[in-house]
Amino acid sequence: MYSVNVRDHFMIAHSFRGEVFGPAQQLHGATYVVDVALRRAALDADGVVVDIGLAAAALHAVLAELNYRNLDEEASLAGKNTTTEVLAREIFERMAQQIRSGALGSSAHGLSSMRVTLHESHIAWAAFAGELTSQSGR
Amino acid sequence: MYSVNVRDHFMIAHSFRGEVFGPAQQLHGATYVVDVALRRAALDADGVVVDIGLAAAALHAVLAELNYRNLDEEASLAGKNTTTEVLAREIFERMAQQIRSGALGSSAHGLSSMRVTLHESHIAWAAFAGELTSQSGR
Amino acid sequence: MYSVNVRDHFMIAHSFRGEVFGPAQQLHGATYVVDVALRRAALDADGVVVDIGLAAAALHAVLAELNYRNLDEEASLAGKNTTTEVLAREIFERMAQQIRSGALGSSAHGLSSMRVTLHESHIAWAAFAGELTSQSGR
Amino acid sequence: MYSVNVRDHFMIAHSFRGEVFGPAQQLHGATYVVDVALRRAALDADGVVVDIGLAAAALHAVLAELNYRNLDEEASLAGKNTTTEVLAREIFERMAQQIRSGALGSSAHGLSSMRVTLHESHIAWAAFAGELTSQSGR
Amino acid sequence: MYSVNVRDHFMIAHSFRGEVFGPAQQLHGATYVVDVALRRAALDADGVVVDIGLAAAALHAVLAELNYRNLDEEASLAGKNTTTEVLAREIFERMAQQIRSGALGSSAHGLSSMRVTLHESHIAWAAFAGELTSQSGR
Amino acid sequence: MYSVNVRDHFMIAHSFRGEVFGPAQQLHGATYVVDVALRRAALDADGVVVDIGLAAAALHAVLAELNYRNLDEEASLAGKNTTTEVLAREIFERMAQQIRSGALGSSAHGLSSMRVTLHESHIAWAAFAGELTSQSGR
Repeated sequence: MYSVNVRDHFMIAHSFRGEVFGPAQQLHGATYVVDVALRRAALDADGVVVDIGLAAAALHAVLAELNYRNLDEEASLAGKNTTTEVLAREIFERMAQQIRSGALGSSAHGLSSMRVTLHESHIAWAAFAGELTSQSGR
Repeated sequence: MYSVNVRDHFMIAHSFRGEVFGPAQQLHGATYVVDVALRRAALDADGVVVDIGLAAAALHAVLAELNYRNLDEEASLAGKNTTTEVLAREIFERMAQQIRSGALGSSAHGLSSMRVTLHESHIAWAAFAGELTSQSGR
Repeated sequence: MYSVNVRDHFMIAHSFRGEVFGPAQQLHGATYVVDVALRRAALDADGVVVDIGLAAAALHAVLAELNYRNLDEEASLAGKNTTTEVLAREIFERMAQQIRSGALGSSAHGLSSMRVTLHESHIAWAAFAGELTSQSGR
Repeated sequence: MYSVNVRDHFMIAHSFRGEVFGPAQQLHGATYVVDVALRRAALDADGVVVDIGLAAAALHAVLAELNYRNLDEEASLAGKNTTTEVLAREIFERMAQQIRSGALGSSAHGLSSMRVTLHESHIAWAAFAGELTSQSGR
Repeated sequence: MYSVNVRDHFMIAHSFRGEVFGPAQQLHGATYVVDVALRRAALDADGVVVDIGLAAAALHAVLAELNYRNLDEEASLAGKNTTTEVLAREIFERMAQQIRSGALGSSAHGLSSMRVTLHESHIAWAAFAGELTSQSGR
Repeated sequence: MYSVNVRDHFMIAHSFRGEVFGPAQQLHGATYVVDVALRRAALDADGVVVDIGLAAAALHAVLAELNYRNLDEEASLAGKNTTTEVLAREIFERMAQQIRSGALGSSAHGLSSMRVTLHESHIAWAAFAGELTSQSGR
């Protein structure tokens, strides 16, 4: 199994709902350094998993929709507790949509799975990994 | 599949038995930077894999039992060659016991697997990964 | 010249004033991984620059005053553009006050300088470095 | 499942064939920091996955065959587009051959799988992972 | 003293002249992860050392002149042994020219010094640091 | 000012004397990842600060004298509290002796200063920096 990883980051404000979050129920924020790993069993005709330039551009576009925002006021995330885990899943779904839309090139349809990791500090991170099917893992 | 990782460290002395270890048969030591990744298929009601504060506290408690010790004299490790691999398994089992005991909260019973990685230098690390069942992977 | 470094982190929301900041004028946030390096020409009687446990505890206490906050509403930062540079200076001054107050132990009065670095992502960081005198670098 | 990882690096020149590569079609180069993770279900009699010294030496030997070379002129890679993915697979196969040849010791025959990761910058890496059988994963 | 750091990278082929370089006299290559630290005694009116977006863009432009090239054939480097040290100085001079030209904004004229670090692997790096005067440190 | 850095590591057991060290008064151990930065104002005739191969070999030789040892029983360290700071100075002096002895080549006599950093975990490190004169900084 081959995999390729691209890294980018975004910076947001948000707050959590639930007593388990203690002081993180207050409005605060985070830098998330994001790794997106794309996997497939065989390389494409160019000898790559995916066009890494297109993959990096797609990730940048996905993160730009969230970057420098207060997630508590984002309509697209309304009603969600934007924990690191939930955001990893959200970015997974948005990247999957980019793949389906052709933004990563036609050979990206050969990708079999994806893992999205959000590093929130030097001591903690969370990830969501799933299959990439024509229905994209939902 | 979702995962969350917490990181901590401990510092110990020990020696190895077996000619394969060469000069490491002498009493020496190591800093182990420890990553514990916890996985589950669906998030709990708060939108997290586990209460990360409880997970970090449990890891700290587990490592405190070994930190600043000479492992050659630890009764709980008697008869074991405390290689990085063996210590990764040992910490896996102790963390699994913490989960079973409820130290990571009641929703932690939904965790499906765990991976414990011990970084022993900038060029070497070892890990143990296993399922978390009611019998906890033993 | 000897130095010792301790690392911790904090997570905040804030916004910037000034067109130069572009979209960062919106309320957003950041994780800052903080390194505090303390320097002195000669070691103390115990053979250390400073009691590293006390230094880490003082840093944690200083960061706890900011952690999980919206800095736009912090009275102690009113009127400041809380850029990474400004926050590095702010933490420098608060750590200097900790040193003067004796929180790092009596031998910490022998410290000659300090450098505070705030890592805001995997590609950017800022720092403030200054002397530690009886007037503490202001 | 246990795993052990060793890290080393090599520095090469090469060029890519295919318009997808844009300016990387020109002769350029890369440092690849290489991680080789070896996995097995049970430890050997010494309590390790593999003799880490032998594993590091085998990796160093494999990389020495490529280090400081222009891969466009390497007979062993003729006709291949030496992308990071292709090189990860190439090093996987060469390490698998080392294992079969006994270079990692006799207990290394108990290894079940291997993952080779090539870090090409602080923001991108690629990997190949496969089973280690008597036919070695081809 | 305040400082700000931006990071980027470039990938080149080259060879060295001189027996001291051993096998690196052959055509090979490297990824250089580049850190540029800019320093000044007092912040500008916006509370920053420099517009970090302009600094990152200037660094990217400077590296684009070298990225994906064979430095042995670069006219601008003719006659130079393009060691990591020499390249660090070269990028220092090109960044200094960017600052003088106004590419980092008018307040960048208040910068007092710069440090350029090139990481060539996980175990080695080189740097050049110098003053930034109206004659720019040459 | 130019600088070059080489990295290596060593693993030791030791204990500390002094109540300030708390549980670290027990026999324990550490992995130290060591960075040695060498500085000079002008490059040598080959365009380098120092022969990086010789520098790495000298560092490896210096660390080999301590690696896999119990420092409490090392005659060369008798009477010393082997804190990270003290070890950084010790390695500085041993590297300075290597330079004086010619182990880094004749052009290494042009080196002006050196900084030795010992990383003891992901959150703490210590360093000693000093001039390199014919009397070598003592």
